[in-house]
Amino acid sequence: MYRHSYPKRVRYGETDQMGYLYYGHYPMLYEIGRVEAIRDLGVSYKYIEDELGLIMPVISVEAKYFKPAKYDEVIRIDTILQEMPGRIIVFHFELFNEANDLLHTAVVKLVFVDQKTNKMVRTPDYLTDKLKSYFEK
Amino acid sequence: MYRHSYPKRVRYGETDQMGYLYYGHYPMLYEIGRVEAIRDLGVSYKYIEDELGLIMPVISVEAKYFKPAKYDEVIRIDTILQEMPGRIIVFHFELFNEANDLLHTAVVKLVFVDQKTNKMVRTPDYLTDKLKSYFEK
Amino acid sequence: MYRHSYPKRVRYGETDQMGYLYYGHYPMLYEIGRVEAIRDLGVSYKYIEDELGLIMPVISVEAKYFKPAKYDEVIRIDTILQEMPGRIIVFHFELFNEANDLLHTAVVKLVFVDQKTNKMVRTPDYLTDKLKSYFEK
Amino acid sequence: MYRHSYPKRVRYGETDQMGYLYYGHYPMLYEIGRVEAIRDLGVSYKYIEDELGLIMPVISVEAKYFKPAKYDEVIRIDTILQEMPGRIIVFHFELFNEANDLLHTAVVKLVFVDQKTNKMVRTPDYLTDKLKSYFEK
Repeated sequence: MYRHSYPKRVRYGETDQMGYLYYGHYPMLYEIGRVEAIRDLGVSYKYIEDELGLIMPVISVEAKYFKPAKYDEVIRIDTILQEMPGRIIVFHFELFNEANDLLHTAVVKLVFVDQKTNKMVRTPDYLTDKLKSYFEK
Repeated sequence: MYRHSYPKRVRYGETDQMGYLYYGHYPMLYEIGRVEAIRDLGVSYKYIEDELGLIMPVISVEAKYFKPAKYDEVIRIDTILQEMPGRIIVFHFELFNEANDLLHTAVVKLVFVDQKTNKMVRTPDYLTDKLKSYFEK
Repeated sequence: MYRHSYPKRVRYGETDQMGYLYYGHYPMLYEIGRVEAIRDLGVSYKYIEDELGLIMPVISVEAKYFKPAKYDEVIRIDTILQEMPGRIIVFHFELFNEANDLLHTAVVKLVFVDQKTNKMVRTPDYLTDKLKSYFEK
Repeated sequence: MYRHSYPKRVRYGETDQMGYLYYGHYPMLYEIGRVEAIRDLGVSYKYIEDELGLIMPVISVEAKYFKPAKYDEVIRIDTILQEMPGRIIVFHFELFNEANDLLHTAVVKLVFVDQKTNKMVRTPDYLTDKLKSYFEK
């Protein structure tokens, strides 16, 4: 398992008139979480796109909202890879507020698509090599 | 069953550098779909909030992404209520492009919360009265 | 002069915890206004980009906020071209609420850039031809 | 003069299909810049709103776009107060990329409004006290 934490402060423009982080802004938090999680492994999403010629479309999101995130709170985005990615990469997210309340969970699945052929490919070695040590028994 | 269609054009600021509608903008499309679906019944979300003193937080989203939505395309947001709402209101969404390709589906669950007590309440009569004729056998 | 009106409803996700349209969403309204203004002339921004190989970066925005726009209000976006565009195209915007109060004005300047050479070019005939009748004495 | 720097990484969802930070996302960068600039003085915008009962609507934005900000770049947001705020608080912004190119400048004016009376008030002592040492000769 690979687990990574990253902070994100709730901005005014991200709240709605309920005074909460708008439900539609959570996917941006998943993006931040997963990009920073792989950056911490030494993997750059920009490199995947520019150098390996792959894009990573999201194929599904399953999200549960437990408690609201409020203005100016720093949310801890925990990004978890439970399994070595293959044809699909599955990110689990757990979001906590400063009081350590679990606010939100999500499971987001992405695939790798070759920009030239527009076909799905397996997770590149560039990423799996960096993950190996986290999944060896 | 109650089904409603509403168009939404993909704007430049909603695309990402893949040239597609950013995956995080779909929840805004669900908001547009469900608000317009109930407006067409004569029900105003603003009235629910301002006059009935209720808010409607989202409790879960399950979304599947099949094909990308592209810049300047008009997306048809189909909003479907399959069952009369009770403690939870369940919206199903189907999104189509101009070629009638199914791009995306989602199931979004919301509850009604009394702003004063901060407790969940059942779907108000104000809404169920307008829905009755769609769910009678 | 060419003047064009287009409606835009304020969505929940576009409000902030003041209950107003977030000040940072106005540039999206300018985008909607100018794209629909030229579409009404028979000019497609997508065509300018895809077929003429041009992009239209914004070079400046000057905006004044007089009154807030509120949730669920339909804002009328008036887009005005006061002069035939040359090296620069200058859009003026006036935003009104349903009570016809002037909420906001803006002046947004854009240029045309050739995607291949990355150099500025004059407004293409494709657009100026459609505008001629509005600027002849 | 008071000057403050804060980093902001450009996220995928903030780019558009030109591959650049969408022009409409810059106001969010100003928000981040000014809130962090005053936080560094020991001043909390949340406190101003919740405890002092004031809101701070933006009354004008003047922005110039020189060079695009690109995906995954860390933008340095420089927030500058050139004068002690009175009835109006004027923030100047200068945005730089990692190569230290000036990308963007903006001048954003805000006022303080009493939430109860809905009237403009002068900048509260809570803020001016913290700024004094930066503006004394």
